[in-house]
Amino acid sequence: MAEPNPDRRNERSRQAILTAALELCQEQNFAKVTMEGIAKRAGVGKQTIYRWWPSKAAILLEALRDRARASDDFPDTGDIVADLRDQMTQVVEVFNDPVSAGYNSGLIAAAQSDPDIAKAIVDFIVQPRVEHCANRLKVAQQAGQVRDDVAAADIVELLYAPLYYRFLLHTRPVSVEQLDLILELAFAGLTPR
Amino acid sequence: MAEPNPDRRNERSRQAILTAALELCQEQNFAKVTMEGIAKRAGVGKQTIYRWWPSKAAILLEALRDRARASDDFPDTGDIVADLRDQMTQVVEVFNDPVSAGYNSGLIAAAQSDPDIAKAIVDFIVQPRVEHCANRLKVAQQAGQVRDDVAAADIVELLYAPLYYRFLLHTRPVSVEQLDLILELAFAGLTPR
Repeated sequence: MAEPNPDRRNERSRQAILTAALELCQEQNFAKVTMEGIAKRAGVGKQTIYRWWPSKAAILLEALRDRARASDDFPDTGDIVADLRDQMTQVVEVFNDPVSAGYNSGLIAAAQSDPDIAKAIVDFIVQPRVEHCANRLKVAQQAGQVRDDVAAADIVELLYAPLYYRFLLHTRPVSVEQLDLILELAFAGLTPR
Repeated sequence: MAEPNPDRRNERSRQAILTAALELCQEQNFAKVTMEGIAKRAGVGKQTIYRWWPSKAAILLEALRDRARASDDFPDTGDIVADLRDQMTQVVEVFNDPVSAGYNSGLIAAAQSDPDIAKAIVDFIVQPRVEHCANRLKVAQQAGQVRDDVAAADIVELLYAPLYYRFLLHTRPVSVEQLDLILELAFAGLTPR
């Protein structure tokens, strides 16, 4: 997505549009939200919106980036498994909250036919979180708590993928119980002792 | 999705519609295919299509069910890791083939706003494949090659989830190299030796 030109941007309209997009996505399924609906709720013309954003997914992505900078820190109590469980529990909660689940699944659905959205999700949402987790894992690797012959980013992928699998394929509910299974298997392995 | 009434169904029209849906999805992105386009290509009225299927995703799903019954068997050479690698390699190929990747990502995208599509994907595509793999894993568990205190279906999820993660989040290409990482970590675990 091209960055909109800040000079041409009225910050108050921008905020109204972002808020409208978030509100509408909370009230209805992302698939049902339209550019017209966002414009109407924000009290701006549809052309204003199209001048700044190419799609509703682009608006929602910017709204989420603006608002979700808080809980980026990864816990570090010295116990890597406990810290992973703590942070992964937050992800389980996000996937089980109807509003944030709707944002996430709607954006990921949009990404399947829009490479710009896909890239923005990776750059602004997935990658920063992967890095936070990878940094915590590197500390554990240095402390000898985790094998250091595997790239930390690869470990992050293996740990979080089963949450996304259930979330996007709708096979079973994403759950805290699932974390026990993931963490136990990831740390102990499948080979019989 | 409700099953269409077979009595009201003209098999020739049905096949024409399924073929048209597959062809159009091969020629353009799933998101761009319309019910009108499918009707036109199949040489039937749009009302005929809507009488039998509620959405283009439902048509595509039926087309894929009809045509993809072949490679259901899971290899069994006695070497569970080799057999998993063999079958997972086929999944990597599906996700890297533009046509089948388009079907899969388009259907999963549609599933995010349509619970009927989501259920059909699980029932007709995901679940049968999970069972084939789980059955192979159970043989390996009985042979003492895999820990038998973990449900085979849970192991399937952990092994395949990282492929879906890359495929749907577009973080990195789904790749055969990825299989080495998944299988090595899954069998050996993360705890330092």
